[in-house]
Amino acid sequence: MAATKTSLEKLSKTDTIHLRKRHVGQACKLFYKHDPLKIVRAERQYMYDENDVQYLDCINNVAHVGHCHPEVVRAACDQLSILNTNNRFLHDNLVICARKLTSILPEPLSVCFLVNSGSEANDLALRLARIHTKHHDVITVDHAYHGHLTSLIDISPYKFNLPGGTGKPSWVHVAPCPDTYRGKYRASDYPPGTDLGAKYADDVRLLIKKAVDSNRTISAFFAESLMSCGGQVILPPNYLRNVYRYVREAGGVCIADEVQVGFGRVGKHWWAFQLQGDDVIPDIVTVGKPMGNGHPVAAVITTRSIANSFQQTGVEYFNTYGGNPVSCAVANAVMDVLEKEHLRDHATQVGNHFFNSLCQLQAKHPLIGDVRGVGLFIGIELVRDREKKIPATEEAEHVVARMREEHILISSDGPDRNVLKLKPPMVFTEQNADLTIKVLDQVLNEIAYLDFNHESSEKRSKADTERPEELSSQIIKT
Amino acid sequence: MAATKTSLEKLSKTDTIHLRKRHVGQACKLFYKHDPLKIVRAERQYMYDENDVQYLDCINNVAHVGHCHPEVVRAACDQLSILNTNNRFLHDNLVICARKLTSILPEPLSVCFLVNSGSEANDLALRLARIHTKHHDVITVDHAYHGHLTSLIDISPYKFNLPGGTGKPSWVHVAPCPDTYRGKYRASDYPPGTDLGAKYADDVRLLIKKAVDSNRTISAFFAESLMSCGGQVILPPNYLRNVYRYVREAGGVCIADEVQVGFGRVGKHWWAFQLQGDDVIPDIVTVGKPMGNGHPVAAVITTRSIANSFQQTGVEYFNTYGGNPVSCAVANAVMDVLEKEHLRDHATQVGNHFFNSLCQLQAKHPLIGDVRGVGLFIGIELVRDREKKIPATEEAEHVVARMREEHILISSDGPDRNVLKLKPPMVFTEQNADLTIKVLDQVLNEIAYLDFNHESSEKRSKADTERPEELSSQIIKT
Repeated sequence: MAATKTSLEKLSKTDTIHLRKRHVGQACKLFYKHDPLKIVRAERQYMYDENDVQYLDCINNVAHVGHCHPEVVRAACDQLSILNTNNRFLHDNLVICARKLTSILPEPLSVCFLVNSGSEANDLALRLARIHTKHHDVITVDHAYHGHLTSLIDISPYKFNLPGGTGKPSWVHVAPCPDTYRGKYRASDYPPGTDLGAKYADDVRLLIKKAVDSNRTISAFFAESLMSCGGQVILPPNYLRNVYRYVREAGGVCIADEVQVGFGRVGKHWWAFQLQGDDVIPDIVTVGKPMGNGHPVAAVITTRSIANSFQQTGVEYFNTYGGNPVSCAVANAVMDVLEKEHLRDHATQVGNHFFNSLCQLQAKHPLIGDVRGVGLFIGIELVRDREKKIPATEEAEHVVARMREEHILISSDGPDRNVLKLKPPMVFTEQNADLTIKVLDQVLNEIAYLDFNHESSEKRSKADTERPEELSSQIIKT
Repeated sequence: MAATKTSLEKLSKTDTIHLRKRHVGQACKLFYKHDPLKIVRAERQYMYDENDVQYLDCINNVAHVGHCHPEVVRAACDQLSILNTNNRFLHDNLVICARKLTSILPEPLSVCFLVNSGSEANDLALRLARIHTKHHDVITVDHAYHGHLTSLIDISPYKFNLPGGTGKPSWVHVAPCPDTYRGKYRASDYPPGTDLGAKYADDVRLLIKKAVDSNRTISAFFAESLMSCGGQVILPPNYLRNVYRYVREAGGVCIADEVQVGFGRVGKHWWAFQLQGDDVIPDIVTVGKPMGNGHPVAAVITTRSIANSFQQTGVEYFNTYGGNPVSCAVANAVMDVLEKEHLRDHATQVGNHFFNSLCQLQAKHPLIGDVRGVGLFIGIELVRDREKKIPATEEAEHVVARMREEHILISSDGPDRNVLKLKPPMVFTEQNADLTIKVLDQVLNEIAYLDFNHESSEKRSKADTERPEELSSQIIKT
């Protein structure tokens, strides 16, 4: 059979940019917008541009078991040529996927809904919570992002608080971000051993009380188990344990958004909520991005009781592509590869090595205010002044751009865009970490000689009182 | 490399059913729930169960160019092994897909957003409409279904009006379904040539007026260009032309949901809204299901002006898998195959043949109250009494079950579930149509000897006055 016309067409980078400007919505942003990358192939933790220049990928957590993993590709291709249809027909791949997912989650989480994206999963989680509790309001965490759908932007301060954003709906209650570096309760302000998780949780309790006193009803507490877009924030111990109790006392359910951080990224555990203790079990878990290694597949896993409440409405849930044989073949292959290649142990080992090297770098560069992470989920918060914690936003932007020139892909995020995000494919090696450290060291050395315009950063600084200089770092040893 | 454990596992049908009950939400319904089909492979317009029994597929419109079309499979597999990443990197497949989509739409529709499902597309369409118009309310059509997301159930009377449904939100205004067989204005009640499209449109005008008089603002008119779940309803001529004018006069935009009916299913045109005239052009079009032949890919196509309004909010639109190189390779292959294999012409030819044969069947079987269709989108409305138009719901259910026993897959839908839906893959042949007609004829012959419990049907009948017997049929000749 002749190859199709479009598949043969090769465009120059200029033409690609031109066509994109013309026919793709400009609200879809490019990385490195002034000189975007045209990536034409990728393999394991490496991406290659149109001139075959190799980039080390520290950001694509979606390519979880490595770009184009041959077993995942083969599982997809084998199934694509046999059958790809909807889940109104019985198929083994769907039930095997559901059995596997529930087997790697605590026992009460035994019923799955397969969907196409983390956003679809989070929207369904919200519906399930409301149907089950017959309550309406949602507690979300400041700076959180839960997806691009209307219902999720409503619970994402990361989006609705933007200047062009839609604002906070009345049914959403925003809890302080439990960030012990820069948040409301800071490790630097309290004696060692202070239970900051309990303090942040107590704010959630008060928020619930205020809502309930105003005759509102809480359907759900909706939170990532580690905050990703919010700035690579690690929840302090005892946070979820206490919050979950308060939420349940108010008749709500607890939703763990594991879309970015699940499937073993944290190393020791399959799921990031498990970092908070074996007794901390959400009522609904949403999973996505890494699940398909790039293929659109995601899921909601919940308790039988919540699933039954949904069924009892009599309203069918039909998702055209959700749980189709190809998507499930891909998800099953990803979970198999994670186990066969021991990638969770690998993430722990490489993550610890990476983290320790970053702490050494922090000792050398005053710009590094905080290093935090677990497994291959790491954040490096840049500050102009460790005492005042003035966000080094322009410096972070510069570091990202310079690292790209050195062929290393990282990104920055968080409310001040001053947190360098590291969330590479799980096959990332210690050698990759060493190279990243070496280049980052060089780039930070250069910065000492550069002059940044800090007006905007100072405006954004949240430090309003003087604090002693500190060298903060948090890791949950795995 | 060894095959993965899960990919080797074979389950008995009993075990598949057992695992599904245990681990998949029961709100996800199966076809033929009392004895569901386990489909293990499919090719062109045929599906095969675990015993290799062949079924003729008259329902899977998603498998648009035929199940497992080799060119589509190859396009996916070729790309899967090279690169699958997000659209923050430049890639040719995305811009070629966007260029192709806009080239087969009227000129003002020039900007695309690639997403994973028709539901994601419709949700984004709603956001775009609200952002662009700065209005909030939506006009929807009775019995419409636009997707499984919270925001879309809100505008889907097919869902929110169910006993366990969430009810109509205050910002949604429901226009009568422009069904000229059973709706508010019926062809049988008016002299031939009466402009029923204008009459139904006038109801929309009044609905808008009422809303505006109550200080509400109209962001969008949201409608399928042919109503699918609503009962395979063909919009009467002049409906959209007039409605679009009224909506725009109120400051709203017009959204054509082509998720089920686009990509040439109607034969003569790429899009069903084009059946209403070359001058009838929506402001936003959503496409999905057939676009990926089963792969999760969908899109929103809109005007530059609306896309600019979105961009100007400064809020990024990021969809993790939307427009990834694999999804776009698949969509590009589907569009290529449609053209190379002249499937639109084929749909016209086979559709006309099918329709004409069904009209002959209607002359023979009083149960067939109406036959309507265009291209390979056909509805057969069953009634117990042509005069009173009492919906033959149980009979439709029986026909669907009996056809399955004869290895032909059809379904029933519409508010009374008495409309047999035919929407086969576009490679469906005249011989397939002839076989379907022959078996349907047999099954309808049998029905004359069966005794149905009609109480529930009679309760649902909307005919409240006597009307002369008629033999109604509508087709838009293509």
